[in-house]
Amino acid sequence: MSELTLAISEKIIKAALAHGQSLGLKPLTVAVLDAGGHLVALMRQDGSSILRPQIATGKAYGAIATGAGSRWLDANAASRPHFVQALNGVAGGGMVPVPGGVLIRAAEGGAILGAVGITGDTSDNDEACAIAGIAATGLAADPG
Amino acid sequence: MSELTLAISEKIIKAALAHGQSLGLKPLTVAVLDAGGHLVALMRQDGSSILRPQIATGKAYGAIATGAGSRWLDANAASRPHFVQALNGVAGGGMVPVPGGVLIRAAEGGAILGAVGITGDTSDNDEACAIAGIAATGLAADPG
Amino acid sequence: MSELTLAISEKIIKAALAHGQSLGLKPLTVAVLDAGGHLVALMRQDGSSILRPQIATGKAYGAIATGAGSRWLDANAASRPHFVQALNGVAGGGMVPVPGGVLIRAAEGGAILGAVGITGDTSDNDEACAIAGIAATGLAADPG
Amino acid sequence: MSELTLAISEKIIKAALAHGQSLGLKPLTVAVLDAGGHLVALMRQDGSSILRPQIATGKAYGAIATGAGSRWLDANAASRPHFVQALNGVAGGGMVPVPGGVLIRAAEGGAILGAVGITGDTSDNDEACAIAGIAATGLAADPG
Repeated sequence: MSELTLAISEKIIKAALAHGQSLGLKPLTVAVLDAGGHLVALMRQDGSSILRPQIATGKAYGAIATGAGSRWLDANAASRPHFVQALNGVAGGGMVPVPGGVLIRAAEGGAILGAVGITGDTSDNDEACAIAGIAATGLAADPG
Repeated sequence: MSELTLAISEKIIKAALAHGQSLGLKPLTVAVLDAGGHLVALMRQDGSSILRPQIATGKAYGAIATGAGSRWLDANAASRPHFVQALNGVAGGGMVPVPGGVLIRAAEGGAILGAVGITGDTSDNDEACAIAGIAATGLAADPG
Repeated sequence: MSELTLAISEKIIKAALAHGQSLGLKPLTVAVLDAGGHLVALMRQDGSSILRPQIATGKAYGAIATGAGSRWLDANAASRPHFVQALNGVAGGGMVPVPGGVLIRAAEGGAILGAVGITGDTSDNDEACAIAGIAATGLAADPG
Repeated sequence: MSELTLAISEKIIKAALAHGQSLGLKPLTVAVLDAGGHLVALMRQDGSSILRPQIATGKAYGAIATGAGSRWLDANAASRPHFVQALNGVAGGGMVPVPGGVLIRAAEGGAILGAVGITGDTSDNDEACAIAGIAATGLAADPG
């Protein structure tokens, strides 16, 4: 499987939201981007605040943009803040460099197919839901 | 019903996509925004091009921003182009003023609950799918 | 009187809204800017759509920016569209060049104290409300 | 009461300004946004500087955007500066992440109805006026 279809993206979102619900998390917003960094599907749960679509998209975009889950960007923001700030400069401010943006990789070979970005609870919980969502499809999750 | 939930938004998208499929239309992208102009749900069908999420969102946003379906903006772009151009200026370039952005109104009372924006086929066909999607939920469609 | 106070600005807005109500107009948004082009007061009536604050402000700003009511900009948009487009370029897209932005001038001497911008009904009706609002304060209205 | 009307918004502003006056604070600017983050009413007191409308709006917007009073953003700006900087990136620079942006919640159930943003004195005093303004209407204030 070399492409991230809408059907798979929906499955990832539904599984991520189910994981959040099973943990009693706050309302989440989940974005799935393809390998080109473009939105395939997004869902914002009732009560998730108005900037969440951009935040979820920004986490997933940061992952696709750098080829690493957004946890890697979060670590770099501590060790090399000027680097992450500059990345966001060339990215037009579209990155959100905290955990919760997770690469979707092919089960075999590991090619990057896209990324999931989640926001609404703590960054660690957001990331756990993204991993659970990807796992439900048999694809490989790479949180960075 | 006074709020556009995620469940209703999904129902609108699925019905709009089914309508497009029944007509043999090109791959579509469908965005549903709430009454504040913020994304609730978006789906981009396989093969729908990469800018479609912004186009679908821009049609729906134009409807919410002005309180009229985007067909109204399309008519004004012909009669008063400087007005529509200026609206897009104060809107930060976020409006796509052609048919396919349809207001979602409450069945009783007609309050604006949100808007659907669709792109991928002709503007008229895009709009027809938006109307079909809204109709499937029992809410009222206002194309402008 | 050489300055546009908040008290006068509120009086203008209330009189403009009362005029609109007496004519049975749609819900309006009214912005009052000072002579520097900065917001003093704004009110958006219930049911006035979400982009109206920017539209009302953009009409008033266009008037202050050029020293003429926005009807003058509207006329220029027909005769010299490239000029109005270029004005909006240097203005950062913040002008809305249609009637409804009216200069507030001192009753004696005619100095520009600020501008009122109104949107929600037809441009002509919006402008009539701005003139009525300014008239209620004893200041002079200049629609361009 | 499920919507933030103009009448309620005016009442909030007047009570906030009265509170500031009773404390002898500097001239204030007060913005009230609805649940979609759009301006309902704004008043800038005589002597309040020219950028205050954007600052007041930016505090209120930050609260609505994240679903927490802007004191929460202020705390995060200390602990995770790259996160708040990135939020402002995806928000187009429209957030002012310091105290003084207070959520307006329904008295029963706690739904977010909008937010008040105040600027002009110290951030703590600004916030106190926002809380006093909301309290005067019987709604619940959530400073974050």
